[in-house]
Amino acid sequence: MACDASQLAPLLGNATDAADYICNQFVDAGYAIDNTYLLFSAYLVFAMQLGFAMLCAGSVRAKNTMNIMLTNVLDAAAGGIFYYLFGFAFAFGTPSNGFIGKQFFGLEEVPQAGFDYSNFLFQWAFAIAAAGITSGSIAERTQFSSYLMFSSFLTGFVYPVLSHWYWSGDGWASAGRNLGESLLFKSGVIDFAGSGVVHMVGGIAGFWGAFTEGPRIGRFDHESRTVALRGHSASLVVLGSFLLWFGWFGFNPGSFVTIFKSYGPIGSINGQWSAVGRTAVTTTLAGCAAALTTLFGKRLHTGHWNVVDVCNGLLGGFAAITSGCAVVDPWAAIVCGFVSAWVLIGLNTLAAKLKYDDPLEAAQLHAGCGAWGILFTALFAKEKYVNEAYPGRPGRPYGLFMGGGGRLLGAHIIAILINIGWVSCTMGPLFFILHKLGLLRISREDELKGMDLTRHGGFAYVYHDEDPGHHQLASFQLKSAAARVDPSTPPQAAEPNDA
Amino acid sequence: MACDASQLAPLLGNATDAADYICNQFVDAGYAIDNTYLLFSAYLVFAMQLGFAMLCAGSVRAKNTMNIMLTNVLDAAAGGIFYYLFGFAFAFGTPSNGFIGKQFFGLEEVPQAGFDYSNFLFQWAFAIAAAGITSGSIAERTQFSSYLMFSSFLTGFVYPVLSHWYWSGDGWASAGRNLGESLLFKSGVIDFAGSGVVHMVGGIAGFWGAFTEGPRIGRFDHESRTVALRGHSASLVVLGSFLLWFGWFGFNPGSFVTIFKSYGPIGSINGQWSAVGRTAVTTTLAGCAAALTTLFGKRLHTGHWNVVDVCNGLLGGFAAITSGCAVVDPWAAIVCGFVSAWVLIGLNTLAAKLKYDDPLEAAQLHAGCGAWGILFTALFAKEKYVNEAYPGRPGRPYGLFMGGGGRLLGAHIIAILINIGWVSCTMGPLFFILHKLGLLRISREDELKGMDLTRHGGFAYVYHDEDPGHHQLASFQLKSAAARVDPSTPPQAAEPNDA
Amino acid sequence: MACDASQLAPLLGNATDAADYICNQFVDAGYAIDNTYLLFSAYLVFAMQLGFAMLCAGSVRAKNTMNIMLTNVLDAAAGGIFYYLFGFAFAFGTPSNGFIGKQFFGLEEVPQAGFDYSNFLFQWAFAIAAAGITSGSIAERTQFSSYLMFSSFLTGFVYPVLSHWYWSGDGWASAGRNLGESLLFKSGVIDFAGSGVVHMVGGIAGFWGAFTEGPRIGRFDHESRTVALRGHSASLVVLGSFLLWFGWFGFNPGSFVTIFKSYGPIGSINGQWSAVGRTAVTTTLAGCAAALTTLFGKRLHTGHWNVVDVCNGLLGGFAAITSGCAVVDPWAAIVCGFVSAWVLIGLNTLAAKLKYDDPLEAAQLHAGCGAWGILFTALFAKEKYVNEAYPGRPGRPYGLFMGGGGRLLGAHIIAILINIGWVSCTMGPLFFILHKLGLLRISREDELKGMDLTRHGGFAYVYHDEDPGHHQLASFQLKSAAARVDPSTPPQAAEPNDA
Repeated sequence: MACDASQLAPLLGNATDAADYICNQFVDAGYAIDNTYLLFSAYLVFAMQLGFAMLCAGSVRAKNTMNIMLTNVLDAAAGGIFYYLFGFAFAFGTPSNGFIGKQFFGLEEVPQAGFDYSNFLFQWAFAIAAAGITSGSIAERTQFSSYLMFSSFLTGFVYPVLSHWYWSGDGWASAGRNLGESLLFKSGVIDFAGSGVVHMVGGIAGFWGAFTEGPRIGRFDHESRTVALRGHSASLVVLGSFLLWFGWFGFNPGSFVTIFKSYGPIGSINGQWSAVGRTAVTTTLAGCAAALTTLFGKRLHTGHWNVVDVCNGLLGGFAAITSGCAVVDPWAAIVCGFVSAWVLIGLNTLAAKLKYDDPLEAAQLHAGCGAWGILFTALFAKEKYVNEAYPGRPGRPYGLFMGGGGRLLGAHIIAILINIGWVSCTMGPLFFILHKLGLLRISREDELKGMDLTRHGGFAYVYHDEDPGHHQLASFQLKSAAARVDPSTPPQAAEPNDA
Repeated sequence: MACDASQLAPLLGNATDAADYICNQFVDAGYAIDNTYLLFSAYLVFAMQLGFAMLCAGSVRAKNTMNIMLTNVLDAAAGGIFYYLFGFAFAFGTPSNGFIGKQFFGLEEVPQAGFDYSNFLFQWAFAIAAAGITSGSIAERTQFSSYLMFSSFLTGFVYPVLSHWYWSGDGWASAGRNLGESLLFKSGVIDFAGSGVVHMVGGIAGFWGAFTEGPRIGRFDHESRTVALRGHSASLVVLGSFLLWFGWFGFNPGSFVTIFKSYGPIGSINGQWSAVGRTAVTTTLAGCAAALTTLFGKRLHTGHWNVVDVCNGLLGGFAAITSGCAVVDPWAAIVCGFVSAWVLIGLNTLAAKLKYDDPLEAAQLHAGCGAWGILFTALFAKEKYVNEAYPGRPGRPYGLFMGGGGRLLGAHIIAILINIGWVSCTMGPLFFILHKLGLLRISREDELKGMDLTRHGGFAYVYHDEDPGHHQLASFQLKSAAARVDPSTPPQAAEPNDA
Repeated sequence: MACDASQLAPLLGNATDAADYICNQFVDAGYAIDNTYLLFSAYLVFAMQLGFAMLCAGSVRAKNTMNIMLTNVLDAAAGGIFYYLFGFAFAFGTPSNGFIGKQFFGLEEVPQAGFDYSNFLFQWAFAIAAAGITSGSIAERTQFSSYLMFSSFLTGFVYPVLSHWYWSGDGWASAGRNLGESLLFKSGVIDFAGSGVVHMVGGIAGFWGAFTEGPRIGRFDHESRTVALRGHSASLVVLGSFLLWFGWFGFNPGSFVTIFKSYGPIGSINGQWSAVGRTAVTTTLAGCAAALTTLFGKRLHTGHWNVVDVCNGLLGGFAAITSGCAVVDPWAAIVCGFVSAWVLIGLNTLAAKLKYDDPLEAAQLHAGCGAWGILFTALFAKEKYVNEAYPGRPGRPYGLFMGGGGRLLGAHIIAILINIGWVSCTMGPLFFILHKLGLLRISREDELKGMDLTRHGGFAYVYHDEDPGHHQLASFQLKSAAARVDPSTPPQAAEPNDA
């Protein structure tokens, strides 16, 4: 429905050049509008990395804060380099061999004119989100060098390959596969913004890491009861959760990647601008419903109103709606959020029974609620919205409960199994090898003292300043300190500078 | 001044279809541009909720941090569900009966094509801001269940009805009322972004809550002198204040809701894009002036330079300019901010004299400075800007000091009285009933211990990690703990998990 | 390449009015698109001020947190008023006398229709960033009144004059100087987003401040070894760094100030939208490369993985790429970041040797890496990108290593010297005079106790709430307190309210 010179020319008395001139102006306007929309969406998705950093920091004990924040900064930084060098090429380097992309390494060529760097930035921000999820699961007990390895492998290979299957025009499971190619179950998988591609990937990877390492010291007592190892700052948890909510407005509505696209005949008002807004609304409502359900569900269960639980419930609702956000009605999003809250509560109960320890509940939240979200989409996707978001194949399947048959559900069950299988077969062995080599888990002593002191240069916080006599004390300590910094030096103590 | 096919067709030699084709493309481009602008504005307004959460958290004592952050999360979450179900319908469900809207419950129909979900999201973010204000006033001493009740009533009914009067086409007090209907005092009320509709509503509701509950224990000594119950983290206060500033760029300039609108003949350069930018500038300058005035004013008063006071002054300036931001010149915004600083200082002095305790100064700041802002608009609104923002009624009144007569002032005085009356008549009795039923205020014991320990599962912060011997200790405590969590258990202690 | 009625009219059979009508619509659409893009970029740049506040707060000791956050709030607030009154006029008030602008004081006239208030807001956000940098260098030991003076002078005069030289159409050093005027070395200086104009200015000003004041008490022991005076919260440092990253997406890509601009013939797809996206990518990659280099470089050096160092490395990479972000390829940005990490490490080593104490490493980071960035641009700027970003002068010089000759390098060496000279000749004497008058540095006693207690009304944090007996204690203290607040009163103590 974009400006089409071949339609306009006859209306202008076959002034073909004039029609070209005018329509080309609209093309340019479209690039400007769509890139503005996509870039600012990418910035919001990037802000989620800050959200993860604060959420993770607040959810661990103070003694491991420096460690986990460093992993979050590096998810973004190392992810940037790897995704530029090959991750983006693996994911979107079409034409591909069907399994993995093979163009655009190092952004050598711009993939598609008018839709280029802004898309790279958007996709990079997605890639690092997956790594951010995983670092939550393995928090407080993982060697930093080991983290560097699996995180690079995840963002550089595991995630890009999966996203190629679901999101590139060549992807065998994609609902938006190039016209002419057949769809999985004549339907393809509608994982619009990545309940599976991002959240399940991050969560399953985290599961294998946390499972291989085993629980933190003290997490379960000798009678197998769960001991709460409370995070050190609920303020950081709330800060992080709200930032993730803020960023999710880039994640879900932004996944349309363009906004200047009419759905009806020109001037019919109905267009992608409306679908983008609706996606922001479904996202919001799913999170709200999940948060409220968690509030009351946990109140009945534990007897108190807990903001940290509510935040986790909220995020579970977002992870769930991420798959179907663009193709369901707002009322269905509330159903999605309601169920996802119970999925999370149930999986947390199960995790405690199985003595599975995940400091951020990341596997339960992202993999569990993410999987529910994929099922949900197969049940509630609306015909009209599916055809607008994935155009060009009239009569395609949609949600089972909406009368669209079971083929979408079939494809989505395959998707869940494939996600579990692919991540388990890649990340599982990696964690196992690291474990066998003794590279995965930190020593008992490091864990008890905290990684910040032993590995990261000191404790994250110094609220109690030295008194006036400190200067002398510091000098004294310096004298007796070795020239080389002793990594176990407590934070208040003096340490020789880099000089 | 939008593309008009009936104007373009003759220029093209009566090629009506061509003119339609071209102008319809511009209509589509406009939808894409305006929705991008409105959605990202809505995201910014949403970020204010994070700002409120951090501001509130930092302004209360550490022992009540979990409690107040939970109220801020729930303002957004419960607000989302209620505003979707009926709040939006009450506010913008036109045609209405004049008092309250009655269409679009549960977004059943899209209110207006091309301007639909993004507007809902924007309006929702406004609604929850009002509730966020109120939770500051009643902080540190209000029962959580009681909070759930009045907060829902506020976002679901009190606020939507008032916003219907001022902001919907059917609103009897609206300056932008449907053409053909008469305006209040032939002028209507220019509360452009809601000094009254949002800030006075939140502030007056907060006043009645805080007044009904009475001051926190220890706030006034037996000689009636004020005791500073300092908030626990100035860093969170500054974080929150900056986030509110950031979000206000969505709140005020975003309230134009469209940006692609020419004011002059086509190509005359003057358009809403310029008015939007000017609104961002007036907003900024009012806050800056208020902050500086507060800095020096409080320095003279107290002898020190206090960043928390400066932040409150800043926010007061924003609350004041919110009414007139779109219709005054930048220099006038500085006047607005300067006066608002003194309004806040004066009201705080008065509150102390009257033994009114508002932990966030929310009533003084939002209701007081908000009311000043409404008066300010009536004095300084500029003819040209009023006619651009509220077009179609040439010769309409504007600011008294700008030569526009007193009718705008008359309407604005009515507005202030109406705001006070409506909120007092709805929220006042509600608080009174909750008070009489013993549901409003927490027990003296809970207040002294802090609500986090007694009601919310523990203290927000655990900076001092357990030593290596903790595990044994925890196990020991577990053994002696009841199966059910004891809400008074201190945070470091072990607690049985959900399992 | 914008819609040109004189080109379109002949295509329409000389329908001049129709061509005008259509092209004017595109002009309006362009205003709407570009202002949306510029305003939201400005909001992001503003968010950097919050980033600076959190970074600075976390990097100082807890006892000076209130002080430094106040300076950050006031950079924005005082900067807003001064930049409105005369800063913007000095910077962009063209036609000028070549040295300093002289139009638009107090935004009296809109500088350029269609590109007005949003540009003011964007430029204001830049101006306050420079001041934010400086406040880091002089942290923890500077009198507040003295800060008010030099900060106003910096944002109101020093920075605007320099930005006039490089960024206004009249600027003698500008690469985008008005066509018809000659360029410095036939090239002009490509300081696209301000490695020099913003970062070197802030950093050099900070250097002179910190140098004049001397190191903080206890920073160097009697054997001249460096003593780490650790910042009090790494969480705030990470929060601030991520916010700065987020804001840099406004700073660098936003500096194009428009996005709806085709570079090729209409419909050729190549346009500013692509350059804006590429700029976001180069910015990201430079920061990522610098962060990773710092991670491993410091690990070798100190034996631990330090998130605070990584954050500083990251910011150094951003400061460096800011000059050339729009005119280099992504791979070159990685080179830029890699080198900037070593520049920062080297300068920090040098600073320790010279006993220069800069609590935020601001001079090293912003001036040092900023200077490197200017050199980098002269080496790696690509012909095509230079001609797109600075059009109208075919055959102009570009990067030395890209085959563009040495003239750009010559101009950039001049730029570095001019930046150092101008800031040193203005800020240096100011700091010296303040020092001689005894206004610059706080007393030894204040420094040991911390400025928050002695000057700013109390400590920023109160994590340990009073016990139930506090009320009585507070009352008791009140009785013995003087009517006037004693500024040395500890924070938990009661203090008479403003009343």
